[in-house]
Amino acid sequence: MDLVTVEEIAAAAERIVDTAVRTPLLPCDWADADRPLWLKPENLQPIGAFKIRGAANAMARIPESARPRGVVAYSSGNHAQAVAYVAKRFGLPATIVVPENTPAVKIEATRSHGAEVVVAAITDREIVAERLVTERGATLVPPFDHPDVIAGQGTIGLEIAAELPSVELVLVPVSGGGLASGIATAIKARCPAARVVGVEPALAADAAESLAAGRLVRWPAADRARTIADGLRAEPSELTFAHLSTLVDGIVTVSEEEIRAAVALLARRAHLVAEPSGAVTTAAYLHRAADLPRGRTVAVVSGGNIDPTDLAALLAT
Amino acid sequence: MDLVTVEEIAAAAERIVDTAVRTPLLPCDWADADRPLWLKPENLQPIGAFKIRGAANAMARIPESARPRGVVAYSSGNHAQAVAYVAKRFGLPATIVVPENTPAVKIEATRSHGAEVVVAAITDREIVAERLVTERGATLVPPFDHPDVIAGQGTIGLEIAAELPSVELVLVPVSGGGLASGIATAIKARCPAARVVGVEPALAADAAESLAAGRLVRWPAADRARTIADGLRAEPSELTFAHLSTLVDGIVTVSEEEIRAAVALLARRAHLVAEPSGAVTTAAYLHRAADLPRGRTVAVVSGGNIDPTDLAALLAT
Repeated sequence: MDLVTVEEIAAAAERIVDTAVRTPLLPCDWADADRPLWLKPENLQPIGAFKIRGAANAMARIPESARPRGVVAYSSGNHAQAVAYVAKRFGLPATIVVPENTPAVKIEATRSHGAEVVVAAITDREIVAERLVTERGATLVPPFDHPDVIAGQGTIGLEIAAELPSVELVLVPVSGGGLASGIATAIKARCPAARVVGVEPALAADAAESLAAGRLVRWPAADRARTIADGLRAEPSELTFAHLSTLVDGIVTVSEEEIRAAVALLARRAHLVAEPSGAVTTAAYLHRAADLPRGRTVAVVSGGNIDPTDLAALLAT
Repeated sequence: MDLVTVEEIAAAAERIVDTAVRTPLLPCDWADADRPLWLKPENLQPIGAFKIRGAANAMARIPESARPRGVVAYSSGNHAQAVAYVAKRFGLPATIVVPENTPAVKIEATRSHGAEVVVAAITDREIVAERLVTERGATLVPPFDHPDVIAGQGTIGLEIAAELPSVELVLVPVSGGGLASGIATAIKARCPAARVVGVEPALAADAAESLAAGRLVRWPAADRARTIADGLRAEPSELTFAHLSTLVDGIVTVSEEEIRAAVALLARRAHLVAEPSGAVTTAAYLHRAADLPRGRTVAVVSGGNIDPTDLAALLAT
């Protein structure tokens, strides 16, 4: 299987320069002395998540002739917002298929970017999206299972390598695996001595189990849905697993309690609002030190879309 | 009176490059169409506030011969943390004089950066600090009333001008006036068509009254202490007022309720933890539109050191 190349990621970086923010590396004065920590705050992107990078790269590559027919995505989360936001910027019609249990506030947020929202049963949403693609001649923008999406997410790795070439460890959340695939490709090309370690909730550790087994191990969706980290409930595809098994140095897991504590710590000490999925890397830094290489560490904070009342509850305790 | 020059600010930028984070401009997808908004998130600096810039520039200019005798500052807030943090990085001994009502958690934070903490009655702290300077031959690092400190804070303006040369309005919190003086100097030099407007709490609007009167008008400290924006309770000096009256296009005021709402909005929509003082510019953008020029606007979010339980209370409502 062909893996994404660092050249494709460099090309993606040029395509998304006007859409995604080049986020800084934030040094943490509360880190351990022998493993200084920087945060890569992707929660500061428009729509509050890294997803904008992959969506922008994929949508920039749609041929001129196909652009008037627009794009389709299925997601209830950050990918939906990202596709809607980028489509509006690019002037493309967008249709987002959401599962029928999606909170009204998320549907409203998607509509606020000008996207059409189609509600479907969760088991039908891929079928509904594919039918829209066929009927309208629209282009599907998948959440992770596409080289252009992986290349877009990989621009985070290029930015880390450019700003901190001496980085020794990069911690990345793993769900469908697009983010980790892209970042690992960029880091291994530009900083070959650095390790890239994925982080999963213990309650959705299918990628960790897959890496250990050397093949894709499937967990029931109901099991993966148990974690508070609602952005980490997807599972790798053949394409992303090929990247992970070739490029990633390991995957560590964190508990629900560790994730909650990391969300609170990021607000208190780093002044960042992170969603649970975005806080797993900080949780791993704090609680899996024994399993991680020492040295200069970057933790990717992938998103910030947490319900404010949930954040309030975590901060009040 | 000699005002700080943009050349001094450019020199400061080179001195602080390894100490302060070059914060990004964050576009806000919730802004009005005819006045797009970017946030300049200085709450993401180490110690959570812009103060690190002025402290680093002032301390970088201490002559080699005076460095072993260290630095002294009086502050209970972000300036204390900034001086302690920079002194540790620069390898200088630091003594921070804090008023006797300072919360233990703030004293502990200052000590955690390796600074000596001296507790004094609030009316005596300047005298105590001056005595330490005389006895030890240490260098005083003032919070705003010094050209080197103003030049350091002005580096924010250079970054805004470099990243968004077409900026039309910059909103800056005003307390002692060092931040607004530095930013206005940089913006007026690099983007002469842009307006710079200060923002104060209505409960501590001494600088607004001074600008209107054309001379420094003093408010009793007890009056200025009423605002929730505890970083905006200081008053301009002759030096900073000379900058403000020459360079700033106006000052608008915001209510306590508007400040609280802006803190909550920044957490919800921008994924930033801002302290009340840091949120006043967003409050002005939202609630003083009629008093502000339209067009491309930057709001400086000056700091993020809010008590987590206070933030929780604002988010829960």
